[in-house]
Amino acid sequence: MLIVKKFGGSSVANKERIFNVARRCIEDYKEGHDVVVVLSAMGDTTDELLALAKTINPKAKKRELDMLLTTGEQVSVSLMAMALQSLDVPAVSLNGFQVRMHSTSRYGNARFKRVEKERILHELDSRKIVIVTGFQGVNKYDDVTTLGRGGSDTTAVALAAVLHADKCEIYTDVDGVYTADPRVVKNAKKIDTITYDEMLELASLGARVLHNRSVEMAKKYNVELVVRSSLNHSEGTVVKEAKGVEKLLVTGVAADQNTARISVIGVEDRPGIAFRIFDTLAKNNINVDIILQSVGREGTKDISFTVASDDLKAAIRTLEENKERLTIKDITWNEDVAKLSVVGAGMMSNPGVAAKMFESLYNSRVNINMISTSEIRITVLVPKKDIDKAMNAVHDGFAMSD
Amino acid sequence: MLIVKKFGGSSVANKERIFNVARRCIEDYKEGHDVVVVLSAMGDTTDELLALAKTINPKAKKRELDMLLTTGEQVSVSLMAMALQSLDVPAVSLNGFQVRMHSTSRYGNARFKRVEKERILHELDSRKIVIVTGFQGVNKYDDVTTLGRGGSDTTAVALAAVLHADKCEIYTDVDGVYTADPRVVKNAKKIDTITYDEMLELASLGARVLHNRSVEMAKKYNVELVVRSSLNHSEGTVVKEAKGVEKLLVTGVAADQNTARISVIGVEDRPGIAFRIFDTLAKNNINVDIILQSVGREGTKDISFTVASDDLKAAIRTLEENKERLTIKDITWNEDVAKLSVVGAGMMSNPGVAAKMFESLYNSRVNINMISTSEIRITVLVPKKDIDKAMNAVHDGFAMSD
Repeated sequence: MLIVKKFGGSSVANKERIFNVARRCIEDYKEGHDVVVVLSAMGDTTDELLALAKTINPKAKKRELDMLLTTGEQVSVSLMAMALQSLDVPAVSLNGFQVRMHSTSRYGNARFKRVEKERILHELDSRKIVIVTGFQGVNKYDDVTTLGRGGSDTTAVALAAVLHADKCEIYTDVDGVYTADPRVVKNAKKIDTITYDEMLELASLGARVLHNRSVEMAKKYNVELVVRSSLNHSEGTVVKEAKGVEKLLVTGVAADQNTARISVIGVEDRPGIAFRIFDTLAKNNINVDIILQSVGREGTKDISFTVASDDLKAAIRTLEENKERLTIKDITWNEDVAKLSVVGAGMMSNPGVAAKMFESLYNSRVNINMISTSEIRITVLVPKKDIDKAMNAVHDGFAMSD
Repeated sequence: MLIVKKFGGSSVANKERIFNVARRCIEDYKEGHDVVVVLSAMGDTTDELLALAKTINPKAKKRELDMLLTTGEQVSVSLMAMALQSLDVPAVSLNGFQVRMHSTSRYGNARFKRVEKERILHELDSRKIVIVTGFQGVNKYDDVTTLGRGGSDTTAVALAAVLHADKCEIYTDVDGVYTADPRVVKNAKKIDTITYDEMLELASLGARVLHNRSVEMAKKYNVELVVRSSLNHSEGTVVKEAKGVEKLLVTGVAADQNTARISVIGVEDRPGIAFRIFDTLAKNNINVDIILQSVGREGTKDISFTVASDDLKAAIRTLEENKERLTIKDITWNEDVAKLSVVGAGMMSNPGVAAKMFESLYNSRVNINMISTSEIRITVLVPKKDIDKAMNAVHDGFAMSD
């Protein structure tokens, strides 16, 4: 078997943890498997480097930030190789250049274009454990890029895809994917299997177990993902194609507090205006999430939508600057909101889920601001202060802990 | 003009110093020059990374150590680019991969084979200050290598050579090359100009101002070096071809305490034995310095030589293992020795220098263990405890402070 194993920064934060990971890798190696390990930077290294950059230049260019940040993973992989070698297992560390993980040019948020496998296969052939820097690529100018936060998951999946790995294990500090955040919902239960689509909805909605781009890529290339703990040997959660996965009505519930609502009031009610608003925002790199449109006064309409909290200021500025062209009369916003979502592949064929969710929220007196649904997801916007109560109510309502 | 400027780790140890270097570079840039900057890792980063590696694996492979250490310079260059950009000067950082500084394969002690200039010229063409990682290369396997301690000087000279730079400035924390170590000899005087050969003898003898490989390369490619301070604007010392440099009898005096003497006693007095001894040591990567051969008892001979202190153990082990084959009766050694050298291009045509040196040492009661001479250098081995006294005596004897 060829196994790709990815460990995050907290799993390699110090000497003891590095050796813990090394021993985990050796178990598979000694059973005769080929092992490729993807690592993030140690502990808080990335944040520390960002803070260092900020003292030098608060508006540092992303190209130089990427040059700086990518050193973090290079430190991790070289130390891991040393740890494995000290345990008498041949190992070699490789960075994005050496593997040739070609990416798009966009610094700070690059995507893989083509990942080469020759170097890794060559090292595996000589029975080495191969340790690869997560989170980074090389663009067409030979410059180093980063994939954005959580990008190491994507590195692992990309390598698993190109190497036709039998398994891609994502190690974390929890036992797997839960029906809800166990820190908030004490009855939350570990999920044994989940479909890519369900995982995607959960990941992008703030479950934060897997980087959503990595799940998209796993789906596209049919890479079987396993989310498991680096601290114990329990089975974890398998993420795979819907076939063979029991279609639960609701698989999990997720909360996302990194959100804000914006309303543009009194825009002209004629074709193309909504397009222009969201096109203007998109051109300024602002991602818009839930959108709700309602009829306003005197033949105008009001449009509400959510953006990530970090993008709120930029979004308002952009809208202000284009107020006239976009026929906006007024702009209001609210930061004290959070998104709550229930996800389940079984929803498609069962119309009662939304009603059940609204009932649970009503019973615990949580007010609903906005609603958005997809085939396998229902998301509501609720007051931020109510989010924990809401998550527990919905989790209990669907009896997910049974 | 195209100017290559190299700054060591202490010059970029913190934010203030990074900006100090940035401003130095901008002065030349604003005068219209093309500026290439070579940097070492910040402050004690390299030592800290080595210490970190040691906690993981005290016998870490050099390939992995190089992978680890090269992150240090990458941090420096990216931060410098950010500093320059914050001062509104376009800048770009490049590592060994990006420049394509091809080196030999030998990890930890690589040499440049071919350095490409296209990427740097391209960046200079768009009027950027180009900041390059010192100390590192890439070998034919695409693996990162380091040049060994002080290798950033060599990086600067290699770039100056390939770019046909008008000047290669090596910045340090002293004002230039001195007639002796100013910390030991209080009358030591700054030298205005010095030949490559003199500098080479001083560098390899422990003057530690310039990495000797960098001086060799500067001589080979006729790169004019300037050694100057990063803390002030004084002129520094120019290192260039003998032509036009006043041939002083004695230019400088240098001490090297990193040395040990080994004597092999009673080896057979027949052709080839000495060759075999030094060949055996060379094959074990032990560099031998001063060699002295004397007649021993009963048709045998004794051979004494010096090695770097770090190599003493390995040298003794190698000799012990080959004792029989090399016909060695006994091995003795002494670590309490130091080398003292006087260097001067004028020596060649003046036979009285050695006598003068010995007289100075005799007058201050310093015992001489061994003597070795080249055309422009005289080296003696003295007791380690006497080295400071000896250096002062010789410096005064040749009136170098006048």
